Amino acid sequence: MPGKLSSTSPTRFAYLGPEGTFAEAALRTAVASSEGARYPQPSVPAALAAVRSGDADAALVPMENSVEGSVPATMDGLADGRPLVITREVFLDVSFVLAVRPGTELADVRSLASHPHALAQTAGRLAELLPGVVPLPTSSTAGAAEAVAAGQYDAAVCAPIAAERYGLAALVEDVADRPGAVTRFVLVEPSGALPAPTGNDKTSLVAVVGDRTGALLDLLSEFAVRGISLTRIESRPTRERLGVYSFSLDCEGHVADRRVGEALAALHRVCDDVRFLGSYARADGRENKPVPGTAADAAFAEAEAWLAGIRAGASPG
Amino acid sequence: MPGKLSSTSPTRFAYLGPEGTFAEAALRTAVASSEGARYPQPSVPAALAAVRSGDADAALVPMENSVEGSVPATMDGLADGRPLVITREVFLDVSFVLAVRPGTELADVRSLASHPHALAQTAGRLAELLPGVVPLPTSSTAGAAEAVAAGQYDAAVCAPIAAERYGLAALVEDVADRPGAVTRFVLVEPSGALPAPTGNDKTSLVAVVGDRTGALLDLLSEFAVRGISLTRIESRPTRERLGVYSFSLDCEGHVADRRVGEALAALHRVCDDVRFLGSYARADGRENKPVPGTAADAAFAEAEAWLAGIRAGASPG
Amino acid sequence: MPGKLSSTSPTRFAYLGPEGTFAEAALRTAVASSEGARYPQPSVPAALAAVRSGDADAALVPMENSVEGSVPATMDGLADGRPLVITREVFLDVSFVLAVRPGTELADVRSLASHPHALAQTAGRLAELLPGVVPLPTSSTAGAAEAVAAGQYDAAVCAPIAAERYGLAALVEDVADRPGAVTRFVLVEPSGALPAPTGNDKTSLVAVVGDRTGALLDLLSEFAVRGISLTRIESRPTRERLGVYSFSLDCEGHVADRRVGEALAALHRVCDDVRFLGSYARADGRENKPVPGTAADAAFAEAEAWLAGIRAGASPG
Amino acid sequence: MPGKLSSTSPTRFAYLGPEGTFAEAALRTAVASSEGARYPQPSVPAALAAVRSGDADAALVPMENSVEGSVPATMDGLADGRPLVITREVFLDVSFVLAVRPGTELADVRSLASHPHALAQTAGRLAELLPGVVPLPTSSTAGAAEAVAAGQYDAAVCAPIAAERYGLAALVEDVADRPGAVTRFVLVEPSGALPAPTGNDKTSLVAVVGDRTGALLDLLSEFAVRGISLTRIESRPTRERLGVYSFSLDCEGHVADRRVGEALAALHRVCDDVRFLGSYARADGRENKPVPGTAADAAFAEAEAWLAGIRAGASPG
Repeated sequence: MPGKLSSTSPTRFAYLGPEGTFAEAALRTAVASSEGARYPQPSVPAALAAVRSGDADAALVPMENSVEGSVPATMDGLADGRPLVITREVFLDVSFVLAVRPGTELADVRSLASHPHALAQTAGRLAELLPGVVPLPTSSTAGAAEAVAAGQYDAAVCAPIAAERYGLAALVEDVADRPGAVTRFVLVEPSGALPAPTGNDKTSLVAVVGDRTGALLDLLSEFAVRGISLTRIESRPTRERLGVYSFSLDCEGHVADRRVGEALAALHRVCDDVRFLGSYARADGRENKPVPGTAADAAFAEAEAWLAGIRAGASPG
Repeated sequence: MPGKLSSTSPTRFAYLGPEGTFAEAALRTAVASSEGARYPQPSVPAALAAVRSGDADAALVPMENSVEGSVPATMDGLADGRPLVITREVFLDVSFVLAVRPGTELADVRSLASHPHALAQTAGRLAELLPGVVPLPTSSTAGAAEAVAAGQYDAAVCAPIAAERYGLAALVEDVADRPGAVTRFVLVEPSGALPAPTGNDKTSLVAVVGDRTGALLDLLSEFAVRGISLTRIESRPTRERLGVYSFSLDCEGHVADRRVGEALAALHRVCDDVRFLGSYARADGRENKPVPGTAADAAFAEAEAWLAGIRAGASPG
Repeated sequence: MPGKLSSTSPTRFAYLGPEGTFAEAALRTAVASSEGARYPQPSVPAALAAVRSGDADAALVPMENSVEGSVPATMDGLADGRPLVITREVFLDVSFVLAVRPGTELADVRSLASHPHALAQTAGRLAELLPGVVPLPTSSTAGAAEAVAAGQYDAAVCAPIAAERYGLAALVEDVADRPGAVTRFVLVEPSGALPAPTGNDKTSLVAVVGDRTGALLDLLSEFAVRGISLTRIESRPTRERLGVYSFSLDCEGHVADRRVGEALAALHRVCDDVRFLGSYARADGRENKPVPGTAADAAFAEAEAWLAGIRAGASPG
Repeated sequence: MPGKLSSTSPTRFAYLGPEGTFAEAALRTAVASSEGARYPQPSVPAALAAVRSGDADAALVPMENSVEGSVPATMDGLADGRPLVITREVFLDVSFVLAVRPGTELADVRSLASHPHALAQTAGRLAELLPGVVPLPTSSTAGAAEAVAAGQYDAAVCAPIAAERYGLAALVEDVADRPGAVTRFVLVEPSGALPAPTGNDKTSLVAVVGDRTGALLDLLSEFAVRGISLTRIESRPTRERLGVYSFSLDCEGHVADRRVGEALAALHRVCDDVRFLGSYARADGRENKPVPGTAADAAFAEAEAWLAGIRAGASPG
């Protein structure tokens, strides 16, 4: 099994709640319900705090969304505070359904509710499907589904999991104006044994560098000279510290890979600060680029042996 | 006046509405009300579409927020569709007030409403100030203020401008859990005469490169060799086109500067695609790094003259 | 004809003499005797001085030799003093013959003379061919041939051209211990109209940079970002100026090529000093690497037009 | 003692002869005569072969000369064949004297002899000092001195050491037209224990890379990212292998330094071939550039410990 978790697998999972939202759906795809208990949390900071305090063994939080972009609360929550590491990434298709009580027809819908984000992403379709119905805001998509089940509204825009949970029918599937949205969640744990390399891994980190021309270039050179590709980069504001820049990065490979390890050690030397955020199985359905032979572990091992020979005065080949 | 707009200044401004939100406050700081009419729009795409269709001369939309991160709708809305350019950036401190009808005391507040984003950013303070009061969601912070004015709720979390507009009193100022949030808005116009260089400008662009190791390094090298600093970089997913990467960048300098112009021309050559998003006065209160003499316009002009002499067979010095 | 010289072609040629040496042979391959008069010079500086003073229109001097390495007198003579440019390169196979008066057999050879360089390059073969014969030094290989013709010695190691000139027979051809030596000569002229691009050209230059870590990398980046390959690089001591480094470089392409011109202009900006030493047809029998489309003149022109449009406020595509 | 040689110090020294030349003078400055026997060799290849065959423990050969440039016989002799390493570098001022038998005055000198190289470097001064005297070539400067002692000629241009050896007087010192020439010699030994680091060392190597645009830049990046300065670089022709490039390099630092070791290991991975040519005390009277803290051994050790902690699952700091 790729991306196996550490030996003492987590059994208490915090996630960005409430129940019935996409985070719970993502958690379901990552961890069977028999594997542990799930605790919804009101916010990303709360979910991370639960892991830091020991109240939870792991937390599933959103990292970025193809429509909404990155999730600063997660980025910043991992960059600051007691170190945590990502042990798994989970990609979830974010598809909204128009959920109603069973038997309700489109023509019967007089009221509609959902979280404003969901309403924003479905505004066009809803105007076609339910002209004249003014959407009402709720605190979460799951809350809207619950309210529909309670008879408070006729329809909700929510995740399929919420419709299911509250006994609603999906009157229309995929009501997003721009279909195909995907959210990337990450499972976060306290530092400990890392997931074993799978051959198709990613590594996440945060690097802080001085604000000088070329600083980012120097940082990226440490990856490029070792044949490592980045899959994500984002400059992050560091208002607290004028004159420094923070970069949130994902790269291909596992910290156990020699090229990745040496690159991280180099960043540790040359950056003002580096925080390792985990190495874990890549789960976006894509394969890492082939590692050039010159950057493979065998090449590093061979070069190290060669160097040791030179230093020992052996014939330097 | 730095950052003067083009000769035919816009007079019809679209912005991310509704009235009373932070976008309107930002627009006020950028453009005096006597300078033009303002049209709230329901979404960023709608605001940009208004400019593209000619219904508005300019649109003020949020680009990034220190708490919420970048705004993908703006990033993507500028990257695709008919070209628009940023002609101004506006930074607005996002401070929330607890707004009530005049005369209401804290002890009187039994109900509270706001947009879920605002509620999330103020959850801690609200729990202290109003223990036991369950916040209710509204479609916008301005909508919450309007509802308070109408007597529907006792208190709203909203922008100062909304409290003012609806005749409310700010019972508590700065109720954000993490004060100091800033949103960066950009004023977007159809292509046309660019703002004149001010000596402290930024340039924004989107560059698309093939997904190969080192592609980003090559891209950044075009800036670094010309002494240009980046102030923001963000990889953007390009789901539609597998195997390519899109980067959204801000750099120091104006496209009228020779170093910036040459760098952009180089990107135009080596990238799969480059879109210029504008050069405009830097407005975050910081100064660009000093331009090294070797990257100043005079150095480019001198080098060009030297090269012309060499090509013409003059004594090559 | 590729590499055509400038309109007013030189007619008086200085070269590193004396007559009968390899330099004269190289000059013969470059310029028909009907095209101009030839003036042997006692040294490289003398040959260059003849051009600078106007006593000669051009000088053919050795640049590097596959056995002896680069020729500092030429490197330094071009780097300092009034500017001259290379207009042609000529490669000459350096093959030594054992030259004797016609009728002399190996067994008759009792005495042998040549320039010490030539003796060094043929020591092994001579020991086999003429065991027991102690070679004697002369001031030039041609001088040895002349002395043999005069009956002073029995045999000379010299260029085929010298044997021919003095009526000697080549008793043994190719007596070099390590055959295949090639000397690269360059034809040097006063600044003036450059040779027209041929599509397979080289450009030579000298660049002086401060002695800081990474200075050379920065210099080479200016070539690499523009897709230009180097064919030769050599650091040169600059004893006179402590703390600076001088590099002598050849790159592919002609200064009339936009990528090469822009790279040279960039060096002119960022280096302490750059001296252009000429663009001329490549003559080593090899082809330049294919120019990537992104570095071709058409790409530069297209990018320039795009940039001009952006600066003029045209729709930025 | 800086640059101490390996435990079993060499006692039999080959050098580029004959006796009385500059190489012997250089050897004298490096090794006291009491420390070992000296064996003049007729050529650089012969001197290197003596070490390879075990006939000598070490060889002192010229590497480069400020007037004559690099010495390809040494470069190539070290790059090919059984590996040898440089254990010391020696810089020798090359000053020529006009040597005569004691009592001879300038006006008495009717004949003059020396090696053609020496005659070339002193031609101007000799023409002033001895107008009308035609210089005659000899096989070595020492041989000219010997011939003067024997009464064959009146004067020789030779090294001070040769004048001394043959009992001649230096009638005129420093007769070079361009004074200040320096030759760099290197002491070469079989592979074995390396000289201990002194804190001001150099490392020499030969690297072979494919002939593609940017290959040299990639090579130099391995030094630059680790804060290592080059002190010499020279591309070397590799006629035997088309499509590859060979670079002869000296860099600051000792292979025992972690930054240098890691850089060499990286080259071993990414280059077609790398040959280590030794680490030895810098002897040109200059100091290496200060090593940035981020490239010091302590920084490497600290980063390695940090990485080990991360891999072991320790709190990643």
